[in-house]
Parts: sequence; structure tokens; C-alpha cells
Amino acid sequence: MSRIAYVNGQYVPHAQAGVHIEDRGYQFADGVYEVCEVRGGHLVDERRHMARLVRSLGEIRIRLPMSLTALGIVLRETVRRNRVRDGLVYLQVTRGVARRDHYFPDPSTSPAIVVTARASDPAKADALAGQGIAVITVPENRWERVDIKTVGLLPNVLAKQAAKEAGAREAWFVDRDGRITEGGSTNAWIVTGEGRLITRHADNAILRGVTRTVMMEVAEKLQLRVEERAFTVAEALAAKEAFVTSATNFATPVVRIDGQPIGDGKPGRVARALRETFHQVAEIAP
Amino acid sequence: MSRIAYVNGQYVPHAQAGVHIEDRGYQFADGVYEVCEVRGGHLVDERRHMARLVRSLGEIRIRLPMSLTALGIVLRETVRRNRVRDGLVYLQVTRGVARRDHYFPDPSTSPAIVVTARASDPAKADALAGQGIAVITVPENRWERVDIKTVGLLPNVLAKQAAKEAGAREAWFVDRDGRITEGGSTNAWIVTGEGRLITRHADNAILRGVTRTVMMEVAEKLQLRVEERAFTVAEALAAKEAFVTSATNFATPVVRIDGQPIGDGKPGRVARALRETFHQVAEIAP
Repeated sequence: MSRIAYVNGQYVPHAQAGVHIEDRGYQFADGVYEVCEVRGGHLVDERRHMARLVRSLGEIRIRLPMSLTALGIVLRETVRRNRVRDGLVYLQVTRGVARRDHYFPDPSTSPAIVVTARASDPAKADALAGQGIAVITVPENRWERVDIKTVGLLPNVLAKQAAKEAGAREAWFVDRDGRITEGGSTNAWIVTGEGRLITRHADNAILRGVTRTVMMEVAEKLQLRVEERAFTVAEALAAKEAFVTSATNFATPVVRIDGQPIGDGKPGRVARALRETFHQVAEIAP
Repeated sequence: MSRIAYVNGQYVPHAQAGVHIEDRGYQFADGVYEVCEVRGGHLVDERRHMARLVRSLGEIRIRLPMSLTALGIVLRETVRRNRVRDGLVYLQVTRGVARRDHYFPDPSTSPAIVVTARASDPAKADALAGQGIAVITVPENRWERVDIKTVGLLPNVLAKQAAKEAGAREAWFVDRDGRITEGGSTNAWIVTGEGRLITRHADNAILRGVTRTVMMEVAEKLQLRVEERAFTVAEALAAKEAFVTSATNFATPVVRIDGQPIGDGKPGRVARALRETFHQVAEIAP
């Protein structure tokens, strides 16, 4: 089956899905995005993803190109046309097409929107989680507003590529005070010897992950205590467990950081419990 | 006359010039660009722009999609097809089209290239320089590798838009030590009471502007002394003159910073001399 993308009002074959060369997403990274899990054909945590999209757009003053109701219909229709049962839906909104100039274009310029969907293999993701992943640390070098989910992801690309080349799967950014901010495409967590969950407070230095937020509710359900605060690389290395969260990773255990085993070097009990319980707490929209 | 763009091997009408929605430039800002002045139908400082392009690509490990000789032919042909005598040529190279994933795609993935050209009105630019421009200062908030000329320009977009809304034309970024790094799309310069030119040293915190480099030779020709070092907002406010440089601005005098007049509030003598002498020093390729 060939893939279908939604591009500015039309459903088009993926291979022919294009945007103009002067789309400001292409020339200025002037746009934002969301990735939403699809499970059993349904969107997971749609409400929270849409709320974050609205916030991201507001922070850089791009108009929402259609109502959230209409957008919900487009997301579902894209999932349906691609026959995705388990996978993800991706959406990107940019400031639209205009003659290249840094200043915002004329307010009449329509924002541009692209939606794609694709299947993934839950068994493969579970196998990865069963094994646990390795992480490296890299110096934080991104701009000061990574709380906005923009498509300006080159630093994340370079960090994750460095991880891959070091035999790891994720890179954790470390700020100048030696504290971990977050991963290239995930939030970072540790579990202390006393069983407390630590993840960085959501200021401008991290993206407030939807899965991160939901995981706090999962932790509550499991009667685990969560502390939102910065933690150092040393704390992470000494942790009982570590894990990452994202819409496509849920909770995935981290078993090595910079080559050093975490805890007993195997996926931890807490991360596993969070992962297993996640979909009981996440909102699954019809 | 309708505009023509060069996109991945073809000359296409501008209105229909598109890239794939999964071009990594669109989804990750995973690409770099150059803007070159066109004067009398000829490229200005092509050699230096191409050298910088090669450096930018090397820093993020994207292959040059064709030889520099071939690229020179494409740049000239794009200028010719758009009948640009005075204006600019823009080129953008990205890591190519691949299924969305942060990691670099398979090495066989071809980098993507787009070239556009457009005319500008030299009389209008001269009139602007004759008047001088206003600048505002904004906190430096960009990533730590702005020496690479990537398309991740959203912070620059937001800064320049803030300038525009404050009745100014450019925004100067100020680092946490109160020192000016550079403008949203220009390098920043001041002239001291003793007639010395100051512009920030080219580390990772600024883009090493081609025009900035050439202007040092212009200064030498005019027997002006240049100091490459960081300068503070206070120094700028107390300067005799200030100006900005870029491929499309040459040297353009700054007459106000954050609403305060610089020197006598009129375009300065030094900036004017640099502007007038610039094209005697810049390399104009056949």
C-alpha cells in the first residue's frame, strides 16, 4: 500500500508530497511539529498534543491553520488512509510561503500544514525496551527556547548521530553546570536508591514531553514519588535505574550511560512497571 | 518575466518549485545556505562564499552535491535565466530526502540543492544607507554553533521581527556578559572616538561574514585600523559610528541603537567610505 500525506488541504501520494522551496519551514526552520502515538487505530493523548501545538504556535506567533476539530479530523483521516493501527502521526505547521525575508510575511500569508502517518512494530519497540538502551552525554548547545517544539532540530540530529556512532541510541544534553537537560528526542529520568523518580523541571531548557507529563500520573498510580529537578551526570551514573520517555518510546529503560552500566546493567523494575502501566493512564481518543 | 529556480538538477518555474515534505531541511533544519551578491550580472566574492559553503557542509557532514565548478555554472545559469543584473543569488543544500528519523540517513541519500536568484534595487539600498538604520539589542539565545550557516534561523527571524516592530531594521544579539555578538542577518561594527574599527572576533558565536572579511581589506586600503574583539552595548552607545555588514547590505550605517542616537545621529563618514570603496576590493567573478 502506498502512503498518503495531507499537505495544505489535499491528500496526496507520499512520493509526490511537496512544499514550496520558499516555505519558511524550509528556509528558516520557522515552524513547529507534533508526533502522536497511534494505538489500535486511535490517537493517544491527542488533547495534550494539541494543547502543546497551540502553545508552540503561540510562542512564535503562527496562526493555527484550522480549528482543532478540523485538525482532529485530518489526523484521523491521515491515519485511516494509511491504514495505521499501531504507529505514529506527524504534523508540522510552518509560517507559510513567502518571498525570502527574515521578518514575518504579510499577515494574510496562510500557515502551511503537513500531516503524515506511518505504522511501527510494537513488538520491535518492546524488544528494544526489554534489552534497554545505551545513552551518551553531550554538551548542551541548543538555543534557549527548546520548550517550543520547533523544527530547528539540527543540534538534536548531530547529538543523536554521535550517539549512534558510539553504539548508543540516545544522547543526553548536559548543561554547563553538569546537569542533564533532556535527550535528543526524549525526556531523561533516573530512579534513586530510595526509589524516587527524578526528571528535570520543565523550564525553557527542556521540552515538556506529553509522555513525561502522563508518566507522572502513571507514577502516582504506582505510588511512586516524583521529584521535578535537575540532576547531574554523577547522580545518573549512581542511579538505581534510568529511562527515557517520548510518544514513541513510552518509557524505555537506559542500561548504560557513557559506557557505564546503570544499576545492575539490566532494564529496571520501575521503568518496566511504568511502561506496562502507561496505556492504562494515557488518553486514547476515539 | 516569471522567475526560475534550480531544484535538484532541474530549472523549474518558481511558482512550481517544490521539495519533498521529508526533505531534512524541512523537518530538521538539516541544511546550510549562502547568499551571494549579483552586480552587473556577475557574482561578487563567489570564491569566499563557496569556501564558506564547503566549511559549513563539512561541519555538519553533508556532502557537496556537485563540484564547485558545476555549482558555479548553476549559479550563473540561475542568474541568467532570471535576468538579474543587480540582486542576489541564494543557494541551499540539505541532507536530502529520507523517512523521518533524527539519525543521518543512509549514506547513499543524495543531498538536495535549491538555487534562486532575484533582482534588487541598488538605488533603494543606497537611499537606506544614506539615511542610516536603527538597531535594537536582544538577548543572545541561539545555539552555540552559529558559525555554521545553517537554515535554523528561527531565533534570527524572531529577533528581526522584534526589531521591525520597534521601528528598527536589525537586532543585535547581546551575550550574557553584555557584549554584542552580531545582528540577525548582519555582522556588527563600531568606530571608536580614535577612528578604530571594532568587530567581534570570529569564534563559534558569530558567522564569519564574507563581507565582514572583505571589509577588513577595505579598511586596510583606507588606512583604518581594525580590532577584532567583543564590544559591549555601552561601548556601542558611546561609539562615534556604528554600522552593519552583509552581502546585501555592504556597509550600512547604524544611526540609533535602542532609540539612542550614535555619534551625531547621522550616517558616519567611515561607514560611508567603506561602503563606497567596497566594490573596488570585492572579487567580481566573470
